[in-house]
Amino acid sequence: MKKEFEGYTYVEGGVCAAKGFLANGLNCGLNSNKEKYDLGLVYSETECNTAAVYTLNKVKGAPILVTKKHLAETGGKAKAVIVNSKNANTCNFDGEAKAEQMSALAADALGIRPEEVIVASTGVIGQILPMEPIASHIDELAQGLSADGNSKAAYAIMTTDTVMKEVAVAFEIDGVTCHLGGMAKGSGMIHPNMATTLNFVTTDVAISSEMVQKALSEIVKITYNCLSVDGDTSTNDMVSVMANGLAGNAMISEEGDNFEIFKKALYIVMMNMTMMLAKDGEGATKLIECTCSCAPDLDTAIIVAKSVIRSPLLKCAIFGEDANWGRILCAIGYAEAEFDIDKVDVDIRSEYGIIEVCRNGAGVEFSEDEAKKILASDEIYIDISLNLGQSQAKAWGCDLTYDYVKINGDYRS
Amino acid sequence: MKKEFEGYTYVEGGVCAAKGFLANGLNCGLNSNKEKYDLGLVYSETECNTAAVYTLNKVKGAPILVTKKHLAETGGKAKAVIVNSKNANTCNFDGEAKAEQMSALAADALGIRPEEVIVASTGVIGQILPMEPIASHIDELAQGLSADGNSKAAYAIMTTDTVMKEVAVAFEIDGVTCHLGGMAKGSGMIHPNMATTLNFVTTDVAISSEMVQKALSEIVKITYNCLSVDGDTSTNDMVSVMANGLAGNAMISEEGDNFEIFKKALYIVMMNMTMMLAKDGEGATKLIECTCSCAPDLDTAIIVAKSVIRSPLLKCAIFGEDANWGRILCAIGYAEAEFDIDKVDVDIRSEYGIIEVCRNGAGVEFSEDEAKKILASDEIYIDISLNLGQSQAKAWGCDLTYDYVKINGDYRS
Repeated sequence: MKKEFEGYTYVEGGVCAAKGFLANGLNCGLNSNKEKYDLGLVYSETECNTAAVYTLNKVKGAPILVTKKHLAETGGKAKAVIVNSKNANTCNFDGEAKAEQMSALAADALGIRPEEVIVASTGVIGQILPMEPIASHIDELAQGLSADGNSKAAYAIMTTDTVMKEVAVAFEIDGVTCHLGGMAKGSGMIHPNMATTLNFVTTDVAISSEMVQKALSEIVKITYNCLSVDGDTSTNDMVSVMANGLAGNAMISEEGDNFEIFKKALYIVMMNMTMMLAKDGEGATKLIECTCSCAPDLDTAIIVAKSVIRSPLLKCAIFGEDANWGRILCAIGYAEAEFDIDKVDVDIRSEYGIIEVCRNGAGVEFSEDEAKKILASDEIYIDISLNLGQSQAKAWGCDLTYDYVKINGDYRS
Repeated sequence: MKKEFEGYTYVEGGVCAAKGFLANGLNCGLNSNKEKYDLGLVYSETECNTAAVYTLNKVKGAPILVTKKHLAETGGKAKAVIVNSKNANTCNFDGEAKAEQMSALAADALGIRPEEVIVASTGVIGQILPMEPIASHIDELAQGLSADGNSKAAYAIMTTDTVMKEVAVAFEIDGVTCHLGGMAKGSGMIHPNMATTLNFVTTDVAISSEMVQKALSEIVKITYNCLSVDGDTSTNDMVSVMANGLAGNAMISEEGDNFEIFKKALYIVMMNMTMMLAKDGEGATKLIECTCSCAPDLDTAIIVAKSVIRSPLLKCAIFGEDANWGRILCAIGYAEAEFDIDKVDVDIRSEYGIIEVCRNGAGVEFSEDEAKKILASDEIYIDISLNLGQSQAKAWGCDLTYDYVKINGDYRS
């Protein structure tokens, strides 16, 4: 990872990068592979102003419903996150009761109230979540909390992920050093809609719950919601941001320069995690980033970029390193937005070069050798210009490979 | 194929089953494999009342634009179809001129007017269509027209299709024997939107252009538009229905019993072709038919059934013969329609049996052995009840396999 992004410095520590946050993870037995952690805990020493966004799937995981209820009860305050992998606790008759039990177990172990707990689950849908493994390991999990336990928690939430996903940045507000970091999981069933797969962000910035929610809603739209691995919107998607205020800056309670600084930090962390999620898509060998620029408005840019990223045919072509740009035009064409297809330009780019493949909606000749060279990279950039306005958006995805089919054709992955 | 469907008798003959229709196909050299036909012609000895529906993709193949213009000029009359495979003649600066040239070549060879010709192309997007191979073979093509040339034409329009797709039925209107038959092509880039991949239907029923169009619009909504192989809406989708009236029935020019008989024939032919297209989806090993019943209205039933059929995760699970019903619930959940997820029931069915997997939105226990046995079939039926109303719709698709990736990862398929 780069060291710096427009004045923000990347730092280690994930969800523990911000002051006052502790984390831990372990195997409690939900996963029969004892090497793999399946239960994670994040804890803030002080109360956090907290915001969350959730999946728009009508089938919502029970933990989503319980977390929503908790944050409503506390008016956007939380002190901990308890999360398990291997079982989504979704479509079960006793799901909400189990999610409440998980919260109560964590609250007891931490000496806080159950409604101060964010609860999440990820894994197979429609299998009863056994509570005994969690109950018998919760004290060990809480006692092992530490300021460098972030990677243990990040490991605990991984499912078919092949790499751990943590990002954090340090930055200044009014001369005070602040931190914002997070962890994410997700590899398949990824087509976030107003939310995403599980993502937990922590920060020591002092900011009101209302302003955290406002920042999260703006940033999720241009980061996680612009990610598609397979077009399947999960039932358990959630992003939460917990702000404990320990950095000591003056409380951010309205728009202004400091809010913009915070939002930018949130963008950097979430954008990086989005790219990590895309690159680690199930079976993926290549990251695809599609930029739609010169759009009449932001929504049009997002819709066009996401339409291209989602096309299975394009994803196969990128896997096969075939510059089949007609499939890009096809996917632009069925995007549900208004623009003039005869003004569209498309370039394909990577670290190895750039080729123009389409001008004014029609193909232009290019060297197939040059195209092959460019497409050999593991990060492919598709640049679309609608030549109609000033707005721009990016969307992220990955290629569609044999391994995606293998992973998802296997028994109850 | 079965012999009969609710009083309609299946017959041989495809686009030539109806009286007065001739067809032919040959290799003109667009496809370097001389064994594979790439140019097809259908001709009616008398003028046909004609209707068509087209892709809603903003990128429209040049032949689509030219066919639309022709049918507008003639007020819904046509006498011939000229169609090539291997090259879509789309996103080319000279596409419309080439499509007009193709029409003119066919018209000259047949002694009719160019605007009486429906023109279509299918294949790679964004490559200039060479006219010489067509020009040099058009006379041979026209001279070879015959009343049993239907399969030659059907062979000419195949691309990655592995089987030829022809269906025809015979039925009676007012004691007169009528015929309606068609041919279709399509295997990938299939997610029709108000139209479909290339489909040509012919009939000897006497029916006005307006009523053909009305019937086509109704039937396409519940057949081709309920088909998804990969969620990619093609740029060249088109269905045309040509009615030459030679059966000798009294002209159908308004709604009534005879219009219903005609519509039913159109439904049977188009529904069968839809299932053939689904089963022959690129790389497919299994047909998936999803029925959504007890829906509050038809649109809700269609949206839910299509959402399930489109899910890549479900498609992989069916390929792997894994009864991962949580993925069905997930796809129902993100369908953009209004219903109560807690009332949803789901069964999985095949020729080998049926299992209940979900009642009232929650899982029910089932035998994994029984599930494996059922999923071993090459035709899988997913039955969803919303338990909210009387409407029902079906959607058709196929599993997602290694071969889909292989076919579409290969150079410019």
